[in-house]
Amino acid sequence: MRIDIITCLPKLLESPFGHSILQRAQDKGLVEVVVHDLRAYAVNKKKQLDDYAYGGGAGMVMLIEPIDKCISALKADRPYDEIIYMTPDGETFNQQVANELSLKGNLIILCGHYKGVDERVREHFITREISVGDYVLSGGELAAAVVSDAIIRLIPGVLSDETSALTDSFQDSLLAPPVYTRPVEYKGMTVPEVLLSGHEKKIEEWRFQKSLERTKKRRPDLLDD
Amino acid sequence: MRIDIITCLPKLLESPFGHSILQRAQDKGLVEVVVHDLRAYAVNKKKQLDDYAYGGGAGMVMLIEPIDKCISALKADRPYDEIIYMTPDGETFNQQVANELSLKGNLIILCGHYKGVDERVREHFITREISVGDYVLSGGELAAAVVSDAIIRLIPGVLSDETSALTDSFQDSLLAPPVYTRPVEYKGMTVPEVLLSGHEKKIEEWRFQKSLERTKKRRPDLLDD
Repeated sequence: MRIDIITCLPKLLESPFGHSILQRAQDKGLVEVVVHDLRAYAVNKKKQLDDYAYGGGAGMVMLIEPIDKCISALKADRPYDEIIYMTPDGETFNQQVANELSLKGNLIILCGHYKGVDERVREHFITREISVGDYVLSGGELAAAVVSDAIIRLIPGVLSDETSALTDSFQDSLLAPPVYTRPVEYKGMTVPEVLLSGHEKKIEEWRFQKSLERTKKRRPDLLDD
Repeated sequence: MRIDIITCLPKLLESPFGHSILQRAQDKGLVEVVVHDLRAYAVNKKKQLDDYAYGGGAGMVMLIEPIDKCISALKADRPYDEIIYMTPDGETFNQQVANELSLKGNLIILCGHYKGVDERVREHFITREISVGDYVLSGGELAAAVVSDAIIRLIPGVLSDETSALTDSFQDSLLAPPVYTRPVEYKGMTVPEVLLSGHEKKIEEWRFQKSLERTKKRRPDLLDD
């Protein structure tokens, strides 16, 4: 899998992809993440990437031409399954979308900044618009990192223990059960006895019950589907 | 405002807070973000921060003691309004929660990693659990960065034009209208004429109509409240 991220703030994305699981996935050759500095595609001498919005109002709008040039250059080199724009009014990202995208070959993710991109970019170049949640960020960079992280960890071989992702919240419409580790007692707080019993079947039942209880209490909407 | 982020991967958070709006907000003294390396609070010689889950199964669980020590050290220095744990089964983060948290004084954000933290941490030390969306990330770091970004940009004086955040999606239960910038025509694609008319009232009406249309089409649920 290859993910090309287009941004006017490439430095912002240096550390999230340079550590931990995302770095290891790239080291293992399981995914290639390439961050593109949109400024390299700026068309005028001032290397301008945004301008005032037609019709007035607060906030700058990202220019169509540098984005067109960058996407065109990438598409000339390889085919892309999706050209994604990160925006708060896009399709809400969830684990199902992450599962689906983790099976793709090549993805472009365009990060908006300021007030967003010229609408013509969205109409003509973008194949999918994704939102990481009902809130506004100062740019699409963190959202692109979130989507990439959620996707990449699902690629077989990325997590050291492949069964680990399958017991996550949302993979079976249930929230994950509580987890405990050593010590058995800490300042009077103890671990539920069943987890120390060594009785696999009882532990499995307990975990399922706790998952169900937690889901009913916190996210009954997940049980409706 | 002060945000203390507790993580076992502090390097992962270097670049998001070191650029753009988040850096400027800190430079202006409007917010202080301090990232704490949980490893400094590890209790044994191996500097261990996680261990196997009681009851077996895939994935490691973060130990209670280093987290207790780190939170206690912070609380000894100043009072905190909330001690937040980033977890997929927490309360879903949205713009209303961002607005609310942006009014707080001091926040701690604990990032989980691996399979999460020992449940006793959540029961006894955490005051609020927040999820950035219905998907699983490899750790809470990006989620903590997302929440911090969404909060910090709302602090008065952080965005260069204060009216900018008020016209964002979600601030009035409507998605933002389309935006356009120069040139008026690009490869045959044009800007809606009303935006070039200079007629403020008509532009305002057009934007409201487009916001409403987009919200009805993409997110009718936002109009139900």
